[in-house]
Amino acid sequence: MTTPLKATNLLNELQHVKEYWSPRVVGEVNNQYIKVAKVKGTFTWHKHDDEDELFYVLKGQLLIEYEEDRVLLQEGDMHVVPKGTMHNPVAEDECWIALIETVTTKHTGDVVTEQTRSIEQQLGKG
Amino acid sequence: MTTPLKATNLLNELQHVKEYWSPRVVGEVNNQYIKVAKVKGTFTWHKHDDEDELFYVLKGQLLIEYEEDRVLLQEGDMHVVPKGTMHNPVAEDECWIALIETVTTKHTGDVVTEQTRSIEQQLGKG
Repeated sequence: MTTPLKATNLLNELQHVKEYWSPRVVGEVNNQYIKVAKVKGTFTWHKHDDEDELFYVLKGQLLIEYEEDRVLLQEGDMHVVPKGTMHNPVAEDECWIALIETVTTKHTGDVVTEQTRSIEQQLGKG
Repeated sequence: MTTPLKATNLLNELQHVKEYWSPRVVGEVNNQYIKVAKVKGTFTWHKHDDEDELFYVLKGQLLIEYEEDRVLLQEGDMHVVPKGTMHNPVAEDECWIALIETVTTKHTGDVVTEQTRSIEQQLGKG
């Protein structure tokens, strides 16, 4: 994926997205994908064995549940889930987020659910 | 650098920064540093031979000049400067930005100027 010489507005990229928990790739930097997603409700407990995952809240608020902790992210907050750490994202109300993940990361980690989207789907080719 | 289990508000991290073009590391994801900076004026023409660099505008607007092109970033816009590409960030008025760069990237690239900050300085240890 070549990133074109243009400005990408993260909120605009989500304007027409209807489906929750379905990330869209909007850019790439050093083998990391920048993704945006609308989320609502509970995702699924999972981990990424070899990759950290960054969450950044564009609108609303997002709770990251850990087995023995939790972090509440407000608009403008970022948080990195360390690799190998079980976590579960929860959004009580609709929340718009940006994500940074290694290009090889499956967004549901080592768990495959009906929410799992292929990278082709996330690139808008699926 | 271990990222603690907390929310990091990118705007708050810049509240008390006075110096322009002096990035602060606020997180790390997969060997990439997340940095924030206040910028104003013209930086310096440079490139990073092996690393892309992501700019995201938190407040204000930022112009990325290329040798034969330019991209104007408004609040909420992101843009990736491809590796090996000469560029020059310019902010007519004060602008607050977030950056993503490989941990080994020098922010002035292969050019050393009085604006060059060591990574120790960017980590708040300098």
